[in-house]
Amino acid sequence: MKGDRTRERIVAEAAELFNRHGYEGFSMSALMEATGLEKGGIYRHFASKEELALEAFDYARRMAQDARNEGLDSKSNSVDKLKLFIRHFVEPLPILPGGCPIFNTAVDSDDGNPKLRERARRALRQWRNLLTSIVRQGIEKDEIRKNVSPQTLAILIISSLEGALIMGRLEGNRQPLLAMKAFLDNHLESEVRSAC
Amino acid sequence: MKGDRTRERIVAEAAELFNRHGYEGFSMSALMEATGLEKGGIYRHFASKEELALEAFDYARRMAQDARNEGLDSKSNSVDKLKLFIRHFVEPLPILPGGCPIFNTAVDSDDGNPKLRERARRALRQWRNLLTSIVRQGIEKDEIRKNVSPQTLAILIISSLEGALIMGRLEGNRQPLLAMKAFLDNHLESEVRSAC
Repeated sequence: MKGDRTRERIVAEAAELFNRHGYEGFSMSALMEATGLEKGGIYRHFASKEELALEAFDYARRMAQDARNEGLDSKSNSVDKLKLFIRHFVEPLPILPGGCPIFNTAVDSDDGNPKLRERARRALRQWRNLLTSIVRQGIEKDEIRKNVSPQTLAILIISSLEGALIMGRLEGNRQPLLAMKAFLDNHLESEVRSAC
Repeated sequence: MKGDRTRERIVAEAAELFNRHGYEGFSMSALMEATGLEKGGIYRHFASKEELALEAFDYARRMAQDARNEGLDSKSNSVDKLKLFIRHFVEPLPILPGGCPIFNTAVDSDDGNPKLRERARRALRQWRNLLTSIVRQGIEKDEIRKNVSPQTLAILIISSLEGALIMGRLEGNRQPLLAMKAFLDNHLESEVRSAC
């Protein structure tokens, strides 16, 4: 029981460190400091740095996903679902310092940790599929215009928000993210939502 | 003379390695292998890994910038300039493996190398300013609609292309980038270019 809680605490601290510094930049001594544990106390729970990185990724991803999907079911209109999704991406302060775990893993290294990249690839696919299927349903229900491409709209939402998040991290402000939220909200109302 | 050429060769190889593996993941032994030089032969030209990283960033950035800005002056219409810029971003095979040096540096580490982050910050600002000023001129010359926000359009172009580049790197294909090019081209023609 106590061991489980210790394990969870290690994963939570490791998630933040991996997200901020990347797989290569991760330092065991920083994790020891954050958890107050000795190296042996950490490796009692994990066979390797790779295993720890995979669990930390899953943890980070679950937190981000839970926050973004909250309340989606309460919206019946598909355009409103997309707008709520965008608001969740932009408005809460980032739950995990260091940006989006999927994109960080994508950039981090081209060949550092293949299992970690595969996890990130699968997470990105699920995210794209969720948005694409919301748009498809919206077209079927006549809430979204027939000429809208579900694939393109899903890519636009993900790439512009993620790109703006990274721009803002470098510039040290939220202006790019807020500008993309305003652009996407306006685009959804004027080019995507069916005219009544 | 020969020393200068050796130095250039070290910078070119280092640029590729830093771009693919990040500052933390950079390995001196990989650079020694790529250049065929001993450690001493490399450090004869550079005082530190940090100095080498800064020069490698400048080199990568200059190459990307030269490729993207090529022919911009030959277009007189500002919307056509933006479209050429987007085409340059998307169409040539990436000159440097590993994606965009600015965004890689932004994601790489939150506090790894402050001088390198400052270089990337300055490069991003120049890039934004270039696009913003093209849009402003277009509005003044009545080529671009008055209701277009130069800041928002510049952020949209940069963030959606960069986000799509990273998505495609993770997925192993160019579909996100090509989808964003098509979206931006259409947006520029239907929402940005002044109606004649």
